[in-house]
Amino acid sequence: MLYQTTYRNVKVPTGTQSLDFDSQSYAPLRSVYERNHLKSLEVIAKDFQSRFQDVLICGTGGSSLGAKTLCALSKAPSARIHFMDNVDPDTFERLFVRLNPKTTGIVIVSKSGSTVETLMQTLTLKAVWGNAILSNVVMITEPTPNPLRKLGESWGVTILDHPQDIGGRFSCFSVVGLLPALISGVDVSALLEGAQKALEAHEADVSGPAFVASYCHLKLDKPNHVLMPYCDRLLPFAFWWKQLWAESLGKETKGFTPIESLGTVDQHSQLQLYLDGPQDKFFTIITTSQKGLGWKVEGIPLFEGKTMGDLIVAEQEATIETLASRGCPLRVVHLETLNETSLGSLLMHFMIETIVTADLLDVNAFDQPAVEHGKELTRQILAA
Amino acid sequence: MLYQTTYRNVKVPTGTQSLDFDSQSYAPLRSVYERNHLKSLEVIAKDFQSRFQDVLICGTGGSSLGAKTLCALSKAPSARIHFMDNVDPDTFERLFVRLNPKTTGIVIVSKSGSTVETLMQTLTLKAVWGNAILSNVVMITEPTPNPLRKLGESWGVTILDHPQDIGGRFSCFSVVGLLPALISGVDVSALLEGAQKALEAHEADVSGPAFVASYCHLKLDKPNHVLMPYCDRLLPFAFWWKQLWAESLGKETKGFTPIESLGTVDQHSQLQLYLDGPQDKFFTIITTSQKGLGWKVEGIPLFEGKTMGDLIVAEQEATIETLASRGCPLRVVHLETLNETSLGSLLMHFMIETIVTADLLDVNAFDQPAVEHGKELTRQILAA
Repeated sequence: MLYQTTYRNVKVPTGTQSLDFDSQSYAPLRSVYERNHLKSLEVIAKDFQSRFQDVLICGTGGSSLGAKTLCALSKAPSARIHFMDNVDPDTFERLFVRLNPKTTGIVIVSKSGSTVETLMQTLTLKAVWGNAILSNVVMITEPTPNPLRKLGESWGVTILDHPQDIGGRFSCFSVVGLLPALISGVDVSALLEGAQKALEAHEADVSGPAFVASYCHLKLDKPNHVLMPYCDRLLPFAFWWKQLWAESLGKETKGFTPIESLGTVDQHSQLQLYLDGPQDKFFTIITTSQKGLGWKVEGIPLFEGKTMGDLIVAEQEATIETLASRGCPLRVVHLETLNETSLGSLLMHFMIETIVTADLLDVNAFDQPAVEHGKELTRQILAA
Repeated sequence: MLYQTTYRNVKVPTGTQSLDFDSQSYAPLRSVYERNHLKSLEVIAKDFQSRFQDVLICGTGGSSLGAKTLCALSKAPSARIHFMDNVDPDTFERLFVRLNPKTTGIVIVSKSGSTVETLMQTLTLKAVWGNAILSNVVMITEPTPNPLRKLGESWGVTILDHPQDIGGRFSCFSVVGLLPALISGVDVSALLEGAQKALEAHEADVSGPAFVASYCHLKLDKPNHVLMPYCDRLLPFAFWWKQLWAESLGKETKGFTPIESLGTVDQHSQLQLYLDGPQDKFFTIITTSQKGLGWKVEGIPLFEGKTMGDLIVAEQEATIETLASRGCPLRVVHLETLNETSLGSLLMHFMIETIVTADLLDVNAFDQPAVEHGKELTRQILAA
């Protein structure tokens, strides 16, 4: 495995559990085996890299969070990537001041093609920047006669198909995640390989780490789940997971409230509450091997000959031990190295864990019925 | 008042409540009346603006979150402000590639002067960039013989006093918040005026909005508190509030778990859970008047003649109505305009609300005893 899991203060089930599981549930994840579309995506990405200094990814929720997570691995992107996931006019005003439309590429993503925020972003870009930007636009939407596709067709822009059988929050290994990743120079082959390994391992033994975790969640029944990576590049991953966990499980008064946290930052913000506040939380701490990374410093005896990496490693250990000694239930997910392969495995693991947990909770992991009313109400208020 | 509060699904107390309240609790907030130090801070800020293209604010928790909140109001900062609040070597490596030490100003903030992260950041900057940067450094720390001050004195850098009677999370109106705000061009006089108005209003009538809110929190007893602004510039405010609420109240198994959220983004991530998951949340939605802001668009009948501002206003209304119709307890805090004055009031309001709630919960709002063990353990692991 590309990651190791250890538990503290949790009675972990042992032995094979019988899981009466409909393997159809994994169908959206199997897109990870597809490689045929990579060539054509690479062509688009190369074109973007050669023509643009800035790239806007317009989209929200599942159309944004997975791509953001992947792009966070980018070492030295040739273009600045901006994720536009809101409809705040002030943010767009600042954008228009800073960017040159001639050197700005635009990727517009909406599965349904009727997401009002994404449509408003699209029409605003067109209203302000004019027709000249249309040759800079790529759209990703379902092959249905939806509003976004109709706009794109009438404008003559490139349109890629969003897979119809993959919901937004499970779409990071499809074109939705891969095109932005390729544009920002991320190794998507390694990513898909890592993801594939995690899926294969799970299909070979369904009582593996995803099942163990899901079983623990149900047994422990802590209402709040904290995910705390000790690594800046994994913060977007925590936000991606928040959507996955909240929307897939939060229904019929079931589910858990996901809370993103960042080490060491939140030691100075949330840790007091975690340790001494209501004991209603399960913790997942994500650690990486950073020992010796950084620069040797001098000037303070405690740090003599130590590096920043030594400090963050000492702090993650101290937090784990402190939580454990307080009796807080937690697991540590350790990545030896954070790279495309291990991130692919991690993403896949958490998608499987979500699907298995939904199955154990007896909820549908793939819908989000409660938000439909608000969408309808927005249209009514806007039309009034 | 510079903001209006309305409640839904909450039985709000009416009539004056007797509050046996030690007015000493507000002492840290009274720093808002001080204006004498502004002149000298302005001189430093002007110097930074004239010399630097980039400014690093090194500090974590209360040494970072308040300043970040204030700087988010900056319209067109002359320098790029980078908040360095973590000790991830990879993040610093990327920083060293991008920045020129000659045109980079550095503000280093630690109240105690012994925060290991801040000390490590400081020594790393010195190790990599050398003595040449020392003339670019300003430190903010208590007037005690602490490690940071000793370093600063031996290096001959400018050192400003962190007030000893104001804890980090209540320090946004002190030099800790004001210096970064001035550097990024924020109107701190208006900010302090807004804050002062909110404090004066509360001291004139302690049964005002802060008391009402605190009383509702206790009566409702929802374990999770969600703060959801519909405004990108208020996202750092939500993170500032998270520290304030978590560290001040989260002790002796009491307190509430703060959750930051952002409209409209989290409608596509967390709203499904809020509406249909466990009913364990109280919501504070922060709205602003954005109607008509942005650019008129065309191409889709629903949006004909509408703007992005019209859409975000329709969405915030729809979310409020949807939460209310599901029976979720919530309050709406409405700012007519987001500017320095209204942000000052908002910050002050939430500090007062925190102190009053701590009083009603019978916990000390100003300490964070549970994290001391982990700090000690970090030192032990590092020394081993």
